[in-house]
Amino acid sequence: MNQRPIAVFDSGLGGLSVVRHLRHLLPGEEIVYFGDTARVPYGTKSSPTVTNFALEDARYLQRFDPKLLVVACNTASALALDALVQDSPVPVVGVVAPGAQAAARLAQDGTIVVLGTEATIQSGAYPAAIRALAPEAQVIPIACPLFVPLVEEGRDGDDPIVRLTVATYLAPLRGAAVRVVVLGCTHYPLLRETIAAELPAGVHIVDSGRETSLTVREFLRRDGSLSDGASAGSMRFYVSDNPERMRRVGARFLREALEQVEFVAPEQYISGALECSAD
Amino acid sequence: MNQRPIAVFDSGLGGLSVVRHLRHLLPGEEIVYFGDTARVPYGTKSSPTVTNFALEDARYLQRFDPKLLVVACNTASALALDALVQDSPVPVVGVVAPGAQAAARLAQDGTIVVLGTEATIQSGAYPAAIRALAPEAQVIPIACPLFVPLVEEGRDGDDPIVRLTVATYLAPLRGAAVRVVVLGCTHYPLLRETIAAELPAGVHIVDSGRETSLTVREFLRRDGSLSDGASAGSMRFYVSDNPERMRRVGARFLREALEQVEFVAPEQYISGALECSAD
Repeated sequence: MNQRPIAVFDSGLGGLSVVRHLRHLLPGEEIVYFGDTARVPYGTKSSPTVTNFALEDARYLQRFDPKLLVVACNTASALALDALVQDSPVPVVGVVAPGAQAAARLAQDGTIVVLGTEATIQSGAYPAAIRALAPEAQVIPIACPLFVPLVEEGRDGDDPIVRLTVATYLAPLRGAAVRVVVLGCTHYPLLRETIAAELPAGVHIVDSGRETSLTVREFLRRDGSLSDGASAGSMRFYVSDNPERMRRVGARFLREALEQVEFVAPEQYISGALECSAD
Repeated sequence: MNQRPIAVFDSGLGGLSVVRHLRHLLPGEEIVYFGDTARVPYGTKSSPTVTNFALEDARYLQRFDPKLLVVACNTASALALDALVQDSPVPVVGVVAPGAQAAARLAQDGTIVVLGTEATIQSGAYPAAIRALAPEAQVIPIACPLFVPLVEEGRDGDDPIVRLTVATYLAPLRGAAVRVVVLGCTHYPLLRETIAAELPAGVHIVDSGRETSLTVREFLRRDGSLSDGASAGSMRFYVSDNPERMRRVGARFLREALEQVEFVAPEQYISGALECSAD
């Protein structure tokens, strides 16, 4: 038994779609979330910058003495997982490996499509993780840079712009023997039905966030470090900008209200400033 | 005569559409540009955070000993101009006032539409600046959050998603007596023709970046601080992330190649880190 919190970070509020599953699977756990809303998005940025930001996010969360760190951001998982693992005093779970494992398991010689941000797709992290498990797998990666701003603007799957954009990104798949589609960004589950409608019936859709939550539960079980369940779990949210916007837009990802959202000032998570205040 | 450079900053690369006009109107000037591509966009962020970032950007540029600072970002101009003016040792020109002046001049009792980012529109800066000049002006502000990612993805005005998005944002204008439309974001000039096609003939389209360049030329003339024109001007570009992406995507905004693009490390522009290295 271990009552310490699970720490979760994301570039912004997309990671709340992962928290939703964690909360559902592990209702007795305490979850502490950091969203780097001052520097969001990560998906259009370079690998060194994303790594830098991700390390700062992860180090910020160490003040809560977590038992586990969840990288609920596909871009950070794709570009910075090794650096995070090396830097972290506690175990780290990213979203890419669990998503890749589910895809490899479900593919059965069919084609796997990975949808993600510009940076996630350019990194090649998903194809590499899938081919490590299924060397013969056919993987088609597709960058979908408009999905995040479409979801953030509050447009749902019935919106004509959303439908046209989904159809445009998926158009190259016509005629391909697609078996699995990986939602390789935490915003994309909000477009799940619209994406499914563009695909032949029977295609498996893998939500990396949900797979990650299953991995977290399994890890804590094996490690003997689940909470004792004596009290109900809780959630606390910290953001580097605009707690009000997090509360308003975040509820669509979490599918419940965000009670506690606090602003974190730059000197609390920016490395240079931290070193300064440590003088 | 004054041979010192004109300093220009933007949240990312959109400000290059302003530099294009500066370069055209003032070919003998040296231009130094900083794009905060590590933290772009500003348009979805809060006023304190945008002000913080803008001050850091402006302070970074002071190392080039400029004669003038141009805020080539509508969001920063709308939210942070007062703070920038107070903080800057040199005169500051933002993009909102020149755009508002042109709109007020051209409106002649007709309705003025302002297109901008979420933050620019929420700030109310354009309507306030327009009404200070034309108290009776009818102003319709419209936030267009998808325009920036559409342009950044490389889609042009003929793209079906672009056309549908433009038509959707401008739909509320049907039946309005629109006389002027202000492009209140430095990305929007790249969609100018698509926007014009959705409007009745004869509507004036104001490019705040172009108006700003005219203001800069006028200011330097009156101040006697134009360069002597003895040598050709030059441009240098600095970015907080991904110089390669700046070079690739930026050329569409500048309409010429970006020769010199350099990466600026966080400790060179983040306040806390600057204080540290000053120890």
